[in-house]
Amino acid sequence: MKETINIGVIGFGVVGAGAVEILAENATSIQKKVGSTLRVKKIADLDITTPRPVKVGPGVLTTNVDEIINDPEIDIVVETIGGVNPAGSFIRRSLEAGKHVVTANKELLAKEGSSLLPLAADLKRDLSFEASVGGGIPIIRPLKSCLAGNKILQVKGIVNGTTNYILTRMAAEGLSYGDVLPDAQAKGYAEADPTADVEGHDAAYKISILASIAFTSRVDYRKVYSEGITGITSEDMKNAAELGYVIKLLAIAQRIDEAMLVRVHPAFIPKRHPLANVDDVFNGIFVNGSAVGEVMFYGRGAGSMAAGSAIVGDVVDIARNINYGANSRISCTCYDKREMLSMDSVQCKNYIRVLTEDKPKVLASMAAAFGDNNVSIESVIQRILPDSTAEVVWLTHEADEPNTRRALESIRSLPVVKEVSSWIRVEE
Amino acid sequence: MKETINIGVIGFGVVGAGAVEILAENATSIQKKVGSTLRVKKIADLDITTPRPVKVGPGVLTTNVDEIINDPEIDIVVETIGGVNPAGSFIRRSLEAGKHVVTANKELLAKEGSSLLPLAADLKRDLSFEASVGGGIPIIRPLKSCLAGNKILQVKGIVNGTTNYILTRMAAEGLSYGDVLPDAQAKGYAEADPTADVEGHDAAYKISILASIAFTSRVDYRKVYSEGITGITSEDMKNAAELGYVIKLLAIAQRIDEAMLVRVHPAFIPKRHPLANVDDVFNGIFVNGSAVGEVMFYGRGAGSMAAGSAIVGDVVDIARNINYGANSRISCTCYDKREMLSMDSVQCKNYIRVLTEDKPKVLASMAAAFGDNNVSIESVIQRILPDSTAEVVWLTHEADEPNTRRALESIRSLPVVKEVSSWIRVEE
Repeated sequence: MKETINIGVIGFGVVGAGAVEILAENATSIQKKVGSTLRVKKIADLDITTPRPVKVGPGVLTTNVDEIINDPEIDIVVETIGGVNPAGSFIRRSLEAGKHVVTANKELLAKEGSSLLPLAADLKRDLSFEASVGGGIPIIRPLKSCLAGNKILQVKGIVNGTTNYILTRMAAEGLSYGDVLPDAQAKGYAEADPTADVEGHDAAYKISILASIAFTSRVDYRKVYSEGITGITSEDMKNAAELGYVIKLLAIAQRIDEAMLVRVHPAFIPKRHPLANVDDVFNGIFVNGSAVGEVMFYGRGAGSMAAGSAIVGDVVDIARNINYGANSRISCTCYDKREMLSMDSVQCKNYIRVLTEDKPKVLASMAAAFGDNNVSIESVIQRILPDSTAEVVWLTHEADEPNTRRALESIRSLPVVKEVSSWIRVEE
Repeated sequence: MKETINIGVIGFGVVGAGAVEILAENATSIQKKVGSTLRVKKIADLDITTPRPVKVGPGVLTTNVDEIINDPEIDIVVETIGGVNPAGSFIRRSLEAGKHVVTANKELLAKEGSSLLPLAADLKRDLSFEASVGGGIPIIRPLKSCLAGNKILQVKGIVNGTTNYILTRMAAEGLSYGDVLPDAQAKGYAEADPTADVEGHDAAYKISILASIAFTSRVDYRKVYSEGITGITSEDMKNAAELGYVIKLLAIAQRIDEAMLVRVHPAFIPKRHPLANVDDVFNGIFVNGSAVGEVMFYGRGAGSMAAGSAIVGDVVDIARNINYGANSRISCTCYDKREMLSMDSVQCKNYIRVLTEDKPKVLASMAAAFGDNNVSIESVIQRILPDSTAEVVWLTHEADEPNTRRALESIRSLPVVKEVSSWIRVEE
C-alpha cells in the first residue's frame, strides 16, 4: 500500500471544485477504503484568483499545467476543463508521463476515445470516465462489470438535464420552448449558447460512450443521428398528454442483429414507462440485457457535487488498482467491430401532426398516402382550429422509417395540406 | 493471464442453472472481457437427475460437494443453495481451500457475514455477493466503488418482489392480502410457506447487507426492526390512494449522526416518489449520498436469469482480479463500529385508522390523546360505515415514535374506541 497517492486536478471550475471538496470532506473514510491518503497536490487553472467554494493549501494552485504533468509524484490526473482542445493533449501527455487519468469529458471521449482509450491500455494506465455520462449516476462501471455477463440489447436514456428541464416545464405549464429557454438560462440550467444541449449533441456524445461499452464496439459519433427539441410545440405536448404519452429527448442505442443503431431525438413515451417520470434536470438510463432484463439507473445528471461524486469514485477505484498493481484491469472493451446502421433501420410508431384546409376528402387522401406506403394507422384525431384550419393528429402503427418518410413526402405534396407541423417517433 | 479459470457451482436449482446458462451462452464475449476462458468444471447438487434448462457436459454433475471444494484446479466457487446450513460451511471450506466465492445467499450474509467476510479478507480471497440483494440490479458494487466518495445518508428500497407483487395487486384490484396470496403462490411469486417474505425477514436480511456497506459498519440483523404486510387491508389501500399515497414494504437504513437505524415495515409513500412506481416483482433501491444526492437503481429483483446476471458479473470481476493478482482488492468495508438505534428514534408522519362507536365527542377525545402526547394532526377523515361504526382516518404530522405509540395506547383505552385497526408509517 502506498502511504499517499497524489492527485493533480486540471481545471478548477464547478466540477473540479466539486471533486476537490468531496476528497477533502470525506478524506478519512476514503483513506480507510483505499488504504492510502489521497492528496490533492496540485490544481491547475488559468484563473487561480476567483474564490472557490473549497479552500486549498498554499502552493496547491498553479496556472501552469506542466507542474502537474511533469510532476513524477503525481499518480492520478483529474481533467475537468472539458472540450477537445487542449484537454485531449493534456490527457495524452499525462498518460505518456505514466499517470492514470479521470475525466468527465464526454465530447473528448466521443470524438477521440478511439485513440485515447487504446493508448491508455497500451501504457497499462487507467483512463476512467464515470462522470462523462449521467453525472453521479453509476452507469459506466455497472455496464463494464456488473452486467458483463449480459448481451446488452438496448440502452435508452434521458441523459441531458437541460432539455429535460425544458420539456418538463413545457409539459407541466403548457409553455412553448421559447417561453422556457430564457428562464432555464437564468437558472443556470441552460448555457448562453444552448446549441450543444438543445440540438442533441451533448446527448449524442453520451450515448456514443454508452453504446461503445454496451456493444463492445467503438461508435463513430458522426454516424449518430441527432435531432433536438427546438421543434417541439405546446400543441405537441398537449396531444401527447391526451394520447397517454410524455415527450422526452431520448438517446437510444440498439443492437440489431450484430449491428448498432444509435440515435438521439425527441420521442413519445408511454406515461407508465419508468423514464416518463424522470423529470427536471434528472437523468434516467434504461438498460436491457439478455439476462438481467430491464434495469434503470436514475439520479441527478449534472452539478458540481454529482459529477464530483463520480470522479471521486473513479479516483478511489484507480487508487485501489495502484495499491494492488492492477491498473488497466478493466480497460478499453471495444474488441468488436460492428456496423453502424442509419435511421433507415428504425421501426417505430409515429406521431404526426398535419395542418390542412377544412375540406372534404382531406382525411381520406392523407390516409391513402399512408396506406400506399405501407404505414398503417392506430388512431387519428381531427379538430378544427379557431382559424378554420383543420388539425389532424395521426398515430401510426409500427412502420419502417423510409416508408413513414415517403408517406410524409406524399402528404406534404397534397394541395389541401398546409403543413406537416410535427413528426415525433414513439418509443414504447 | 490464465488460459482457463475454473468454476465450481454448488446448487443446481433455478439460480445456479441461470448462472451456468449465462456463462455458456455468452462464453465468447466473456472470454474477451476477461482474457481467459471461464469453464464450469463441476456442478454439485443432491439432485442431478431432474432435467435442467441448460445442458452440461459429461462428468460435470456430481452429488459430492467435496469434488468442488477439494479440486485444486477450481478457482471460483459459486454457491446458490441458500440458507445458513450447509451453505456457510461450504463457503468457509472453499475459502480455506484457497478459492474465491460468489454467493446469492442473503440470509447467510446477514447472519454470518460478520465472520465470513473478515475470513475472506484475511485469506486474500474474494467473497462477492451482488446477487444477494436486488436480483440482477447492480447495487453492491456501485455502493462500494462508484459512490465511494459519498457519506451515504440513507438507503431506502423495495427489495422483496413477493410482497411488492401482492401489494401491487391489492392496490390495483382492491383485493385483500388473503385474496392475492394464493394466486401469488400459484404463479410461483410466493413460497408455499410465505413467512420469510411476507413477514419482512427477507427484506431485513437484504437491508442489513446494504446498510453494512453504506455505513461501513456491520449491521446486526437481529436488531433490525421487521414488520410484514399481513396486516394491510383493502381499506388501508383505499385510504392511501385517497390521500395521494401508495403502500409499499420498505427497507430503510438511515444514518442518524454517527449511528444507524435499520428497519423494514410497510409505509405510505407519496405517489410522485420514484419508488411509488416500482410495481409487481420489480425492486427499486434509492440511495441518498452526501455528494451524489439521490440515485435510484431499478430492475427485476428475482428470477433465474436476473440473479444469474449478478453472479456472472461477480465471477467476471473475480476472474479479472485473478489475472491481475488483485484479489481482495475490495474486501470487507466494515471498518467502523456504529451504534444501532431502536425504533424509538424514528420520526415520521403516521397513518392511523380507528374504528369507534358513532357517538358525540369521539373525535375530540382522540384528538386530545394525540395532543397530550405531542402528536399534531395533518388531516382527519371520519366516515360512518354501513354497520354504524365510525371509521376515523388520521394523518399525523411528523412525530417521535414513542409519542405516537403512547397516543395510540391512550386511544385504545378510550371506551368508545372499538379498535385501532391500522398504524402505518409515512415516508416522504
